[in-house]
Amino acid sequence: MDYTAKLDEAIERLHEEGRYRTFIDIERRKGNFPHARWRRPDGTEQPITVWCGNDYLGMGQHPVVLDAMHEAVDATGAGSGGTRNISGTTIYHKRLEAELADLHGKEAALLFTSAYIANDATLSTLPKLFPGLIIYSDELNHASMIEGVRRNGGAKRIFRHNDVEHLRELLAADDPDAPKLIAFESVYSMDGDFGPVEAICDLADEFGALTYIDEVHAVGMYGPRGAGVAERDRLMHRIDIINGTLAKAYGVMGGYIASSARMCDAVRSYAPGFIFTTSLPPAVAAGAAASVAHLKRDHALREKHQTQAKILKTRLKGMGLPLIDHGSHIVPVIVGDPVHTKQLSDMLLEGYGIYVQPINFPTVPRGTERLRFTPSPVHGPDEMDTLIHAMDELWSQCALNRAEMTG
Amino acid sequence: MDYTAKLDEAIERLHEEGRYRTFIDIERRKGNFPHARWRRPDGTEQPITVWCGNDYLGMGQHPVVLDAMHEAVDATGAGSGGTRNISGTTIYHKRLEAELADLHGKEAALLFTSAYIANDATLSTLPKLFPGLIIYSDELNHASMIEGVRRNGGAKRIFRHNDVEHLRELLAADDPDAPKLIAFESVYSMDGDFGPVEAICDLADEFGALTYIDEVHAVGMYGPRGAGVAERDRLMHRIDIINGTLAKAYGVMGGYIASSARMCDAVRSYAPGFIFTTSLPPAVAAGAAASVAHLKRDHALREKHQTQAKILKTRLKGMGLPLIDHGSHIVPVIVGDPVHTKQLSDMLLEGYGIYVQPINFPTVPRGTERLRFTPSPVHGPDEMDTLIHAMDELWSQCALNRAEMTG
Repeated sequence: MDYTAKLDEAIERLHEEGRYRTFIDIERRKGNFPHARWRRPDGTEQPITVWCGNDYLGMGQHPVVLDAMHEAVDATGAGSGGTRNISGTTIYHKRLEAELADLHGKEAALLFTSAYIANDATLSTLPKLFPGLIIYSDELNHASMIEGVRRNGGAKRIFRHNDVEHLRELLAADDPDAPKLIAFESVYSMDGDFGPVEAICDLADEFGALTYIDEVHAVGMYGPRGAGVAERDRLMHRIDIINGTLAKAYGVMGGYIASSARMCDAVRSYAPGFIFTTSLPPAVAAGAAASVAHLKRDHALREKHQTQAKILKTRLKGMGLPLIDHGSHIVPVIVGDPVHTKQLSDMLLEGYGIYVQPINFPTVPRGTERLRFTPSPVHGPDEMDTLIHAMDELWSQCALNRAEMTG
Repeated sequence: MDYTAKLDEAIERLHEEGRYRTFIDIERRKGNFPHARWRRPDGTEQPITVWCGNDYLGMGQHPVVLDAMHEAVDATGAGSGGTRNISGTTIYHKRLEAELADLHGKEAALLFTSAYIANDATLSTLPKLFPGLIIYSDELNHASMIEGVRRNGGAKRIFRHNDVEHLRELLAADDPDAPKLIAFESVYSMDGDFGPVEAICDLADEFGALTYIDEVHAVGMYGPRGAGVAERDRLMHRIDIINGTLAKAYGVMGGYIASSARMCDAVRSYAPGFIFTTSLPPAVAAGAAASVAHLKRDHALREKHQTQAKILKTRLKGMGLPLIDHGSHIVPVIVGDPVHTKQLSDMLLEGYGIYVQPINFPTVPRGTERLRFTPSPVHGPDEMDTLIHAMDELWSQCALNRAEMTG
């Protein structure tokens, strides 16, 4: 068995399809977000502006977050030293879970090392708690939800993206007495469109299903206290399990679910992905708690974020670029070819110091390869001008179509 | 469907079996490890000594680690702001991966948010790279390896714990041309016994199999530079994939694999659990890199760790307590009943300020419930005396057997 040849084949397949990923090494500079240094493979460096980060509000450089991290490192050291059960539950974890439960108006919250694990571990554990559970999952749900639903081999139904009529058909076709759960997202990060939260809650009521929402691209950014789209739409009380992240708008790391005390207790007790892993470093939990607490009050930052997204979309549309606009903060410009997308990304980086990663299959469907910009309150008018100018030049230079997909 | 009743049933099952977990809230005090504060549910606090942490060498309070974390927070902020592919690869991640590749004498290393994910993601991805792969897995492998092997539904064979004859039978029974991988651990954390690394490497050579070793309870602690048992036994070059953690002896957080450049490239490119999750905070990567670099040189700390384990085992044996001793740093005292184990743990905590978590099924087989002590260089003679005295008193008070299982 020639294992090396097999690895070469696997890697070659990616090159052939134009979707081999090249990681860009950067260092953001605290206090100067979105500016960063790019270190090339040859060791030379160049200043760049990051336009594709998920630190949507710049909280990763906010003094309340950094101060909390420094304080926790000084008080208690680096790591937690154990799993949550074996010496790894600290007052920092408890404080953060209380902050998150309060954020979502739930009895409890449960921390995971990432929202990926929170989705994977929770969704794969629910069939153990509700034998015979059928999970109804939106076809565009995130990879972590797909992995969670797939595991343990429970029954699943995939409904067409945001198609509540299709979801209704699937629900109606199953045994009325079977336990059911509808899993979906509030903001789908690749197109930036919203899930039909209220319609799904209505269906859940009608068919006696639990609701599970992934708000990772919404927490911190939507709703009066930053609890997400369900809070904005006053539907939070109708969601049984809310999944969120501390690694995007909150600027740190980690993920969680917020739910009833019973649900959190059961998941905590039955999910291997929760039980058998070291808990987050106390400093990470402390930074995240400070960030969540701050964003419960800082409406101005949320508003500025939305304003920046609107300005960028208006300017890109003004140039006739094929933009997807569903009214969220995410700005995807469709290129429609993996090689062109990569080339544009390379040219932006090398020629203009603008860093935006190409998004290719399987993250998005083939033919919809894109550049996905994430404007934020720390992207000022100068950064915006530079980006608009560069996109205009490159779009002409590469003779790409305009306005084909402007929505 | 009464979901609440189902949750109550699931939780009640744990209570009935005496294996409902109660998390103990603590805060370790930097500079005073293993001392910590225990916060009771009523909010009152008590000083305690942690005897069950996995920060085996006390690196979680080492100045080189904490300085590196502070510096990174000051330089670059809190979180990485993205997945490895989308703005989340920083010079801190690259530096840590280079440090780990060097540690294990491999071409490359690949960071994950935890060793749990490193196992789960890598083992579930390998069948995609080697179609038809058969994974031979030790029956006592960690939950994260079991989850990884189970996923994707590839072929698996479970061999009896450390039984190389059984492994040979299984290998010999399969198609000689099928791709194969043997997955095992170097130190099994619940009994503290070692895997037969050399014998497994011999079998791998004979049957053309890849080798995958989990060294999470060995890295930092064994071998001239702390690369683990495979380094100690000069077998590192015969292992194809080494899995390690940064959350135990290295005192921080995160996990990794070290392997060939091709292998890391392929896993990086095909594993959803690597691709679709935010990378570690730069400060965590910086702290871990400092810790790994330090422990390549600090032999004294490793030796003191082993000495402490030997002293504790000798003293517990001297009292005739049923101890498992395979010559590693892990000190399990068998109680053999989940309720008694929990009671002993509670009495140690409340009466003596000694914190050691009860280890019950399913973490260990029923009937082998235990207290598992993790002595370290920061546990001085006073802490040791207090522990020995307390164990002696409680063992008599509870009329528990002595010497039944002393090995």
